[in-house]
Amino acid sequence: MQTILLNTKQRPSEVLCGEGAFAAAREYLAGKQAFVVTDKNVYGLYADAIADAFPAAQVCVVPAGERHKNRTTLFRILDQMFAAGLHRGSFVVALGGGVVGDMAGLAAALYMRGTRLVQVPTTLLAQVDSSVGGKTAVDHRGVKNAVGTFYQPERVFADPLFLHTLPAREVKCGLGEIVKTGILDAAIGDKLGAGSRLRDVAFLQELAADCIRFKARVVEADETETQGLRKCLNLGHTTGHALELLYGRRSHGEYVLIGLWLESLIAEREGVCSPAWAEEVRRRVAAAEPRIPAFRGARRGLEFALHDKKNAGGGVSLVLPKARGEYALFTLSPQKYGDYLALLEEGADARRGYARAERGSAPARAGEEQ
Amino acid sequence: MQTILLNTKQRPSEVLCGEGAFAAAREYLAGKQAFVVTDKNVYGLYADAIADAFPAAQVCVVPAGERHKNRTTLFRILDQMFAAGLHRGSFVVALGGGVVGDMAGLAAALYMRGTRLVQVPTTLLAQVDSSVGGKTAVDHRGVKNAVGTFYQPERVFADPLFLHTLPAREVKCGLGEIVKTGILDAAIGDKLGAGSRLRDVAFLQELAADCIRFKARVVEADETETQGLRKCLNLGHTTGHALELLYGRRSHGEYVLIGLWLESLIAEREGVCSPAWAEEVRRRVAAAEPRIPAFRGARRGLEFALHDKKNAGGGVSLVLPKARGEYALFTLSPQKYGDYLALLEEGADARRGYARAERGSAPARAGEEQ
Repeated sequence: MQTILLNTKQRPSEVLCGEGAFAAAREYLAGKQAFVVTDKNVYGLYADAIADAFPAAQVCVVPAGERHKNRTTLFRILDQMFAAGLHRGSFVVALGGGVVGDMAGLAAALYMRGTRLVQVPTTLLAQVDSSVGGKTAVDHRGVKNAVGTFYQPERVFADPLFLHTLPAREVKCGLGEIVKTGILDAAIGDKLGAGSRLRDVAFLQELAADCIRFKARVVEADETETQGLRKCLNLGHTTGHALELLYGRRSHGEYVLIGLWLESLIAEREGVCSPAWAEEVRRRVAAAEPRIPAFRGARRGLEFALHDKKNAGGGVSLVLPKARGEYALFTLSPQKYGDYLALLEEGADARRGYARAERGSAPARAGEEQ
Repeated sequence: MQTILLNTKQRPSEVLCGEGAFAAAREYLAGKQAFVVTDKNVYGLYADAIADAFPAAQVCVVPAGERHKNRTTLFRILDQMFAAGLHRGSFVVALGGGVVGDMAGLAAALYMRGTRLVQVPTTLLAQVDSSVGGKTAVDHRGVKNAVGTFYQPERVFADPLFLHTLPAREVKCGLGEIVKTGILDAAIGDKLGAGSRLRDVAFLQELAADCIRFKARVVEADETETQGLRKCLNLGHTTGHALELLYGRRSHGEYVLIGLWLESLIAEREGVCSPAWAEEVRRRVAAAEPRIPAFRGARRGLEFALHDKKNAGGGVSLVLPKARGEYALFTLSPQKYGDYLALLEEGADARRGYARAERGSAPARAGEEQ
């Protein structure tokens, strides 16, 4: 088990990562008033483990899935916190994937202006990314993470025991952020190598600590995403979020992979990176997501991209791969970005960029993915 | 005009206080994307001044009054912010009293995880107290400020021009916090003197800067109310909030004054302060609120006090006057605090404490004030 320190202005945070982390959570919360937030899927698998680890805790089970990450669920959690008589010294334990972490984190931030917060991420995605850094939110009016705040957990306990029950699709979801981090950080990229071990959970768990350490450094430098530095973490995410909001069938991580793929094309065509590096990015995407599906009406993702909180002033802001371990901030006109999105109207082998010129949209029913 | 600096971990904040502050706000926001939140009462009086000062700003007018300080209004504000296409660099301008400041501040904190925030307090209460220190919230499920966060404004512009239209009752509302600050801070208490100038708005404005300076020192030492220090600001508030939630007819400041009065009795009887100091506290309360009304069923305020975020672990936490410029934290059993609340069943001359022993509740219809 590794311990990674994260010193933010809000509070010092410790990430415990590896085997034994869940036992450490149990010990940390022993004798304290705890309120566990989890979802139906996780509870179905781990109800006994939760009851065993936190015998005195109230458990709040919310419906699973991003479409429930909204204000209705948020206030259901808050109402149960009031009913449980929590006070500011009580612990909210976010035990689940990114959706649970985001919502429980926001509830902890808002309840009586802030209770104590512990994250116990149960998915690869949450372990390598969303449980670390203090971002909390719910979606609202078709905007991802539209309403939220920055609220640092006191402790994050990332235990691989939860990964053994993780469906393959959820593993792939975590891969999105791992591949992204490998593009931003040369050493992690080298470890990832040709991607042949991406189905090996033990190997991924090994990488998790590196990804967390990388993210911790970025978050320390730019806690509330105001200095520009933290933006690098949004590599692939402008497109990923737009597709996620438009289609919503696949997981966040899969859309991030597809976003990375399209944005490697944009980077190449706009002269931000060399064709060789763009190809390397696509090769890494392909190791996790070999085929880019065809998205009917993908151009309509533009309206979601324009509502994205990363964007201000009419343009579409992208974080693009620049070179090994380097990124660039780049702004495209809405028209031009829409044209790039339209490239997704047809499927592709992820290792390839599109050779042909952009074409007009096919007769499309937006919101459908072929 | 005075400038008071407030250095919090979140961000440095500047309070501009005195004539010319509103003009300074106009200058500060010139050329920036601004979104003004105000209420019907303030807008009715100052629509022209707002349009003149912030010609390009969108104006969001919410219904006036504490009963609208809830999640419905909060999300109405957020929805209008989305419709206006605000981004993280846009300014939310909270132009109104404490209710507007609390809700607009929370909306600014939550929109895209935080926009820029400016407070333009228009009531004496908001100028001396609520606009400074970063507390934001809405009420929820009968708990005052149950859902909120700490979010520091970049600037506070407190201009006396707004005080000229302030109804007498609203002036009295501000007096609650000024009298409270005078009990906590000896120098401000001495300036207040016998209270003969409490109806003189120019004099109160003079005191406002002192109160803000006092509060700024406390907030800097304990930004998120976790060190205990900031609790001193809750003198009179446990009882004040309980009555406010139970009856809700009078203003926050009036309930604080009544809370100060009852808590001076508690402090005296529990041996926390001398009878002479308790009398001095009551004398100052009486200068602003000569008569303590009779509250039928006041004991029922207990359940609100027990839900108060200041309370944990079954007891009722009070901040009591101890001596000139000193306070004490004190916890009472619910039974005993209920008995003290029952003293409010009969009205009194505010200068007096009750001589007789506590009595059983009169046949009461809770929620009615005689």
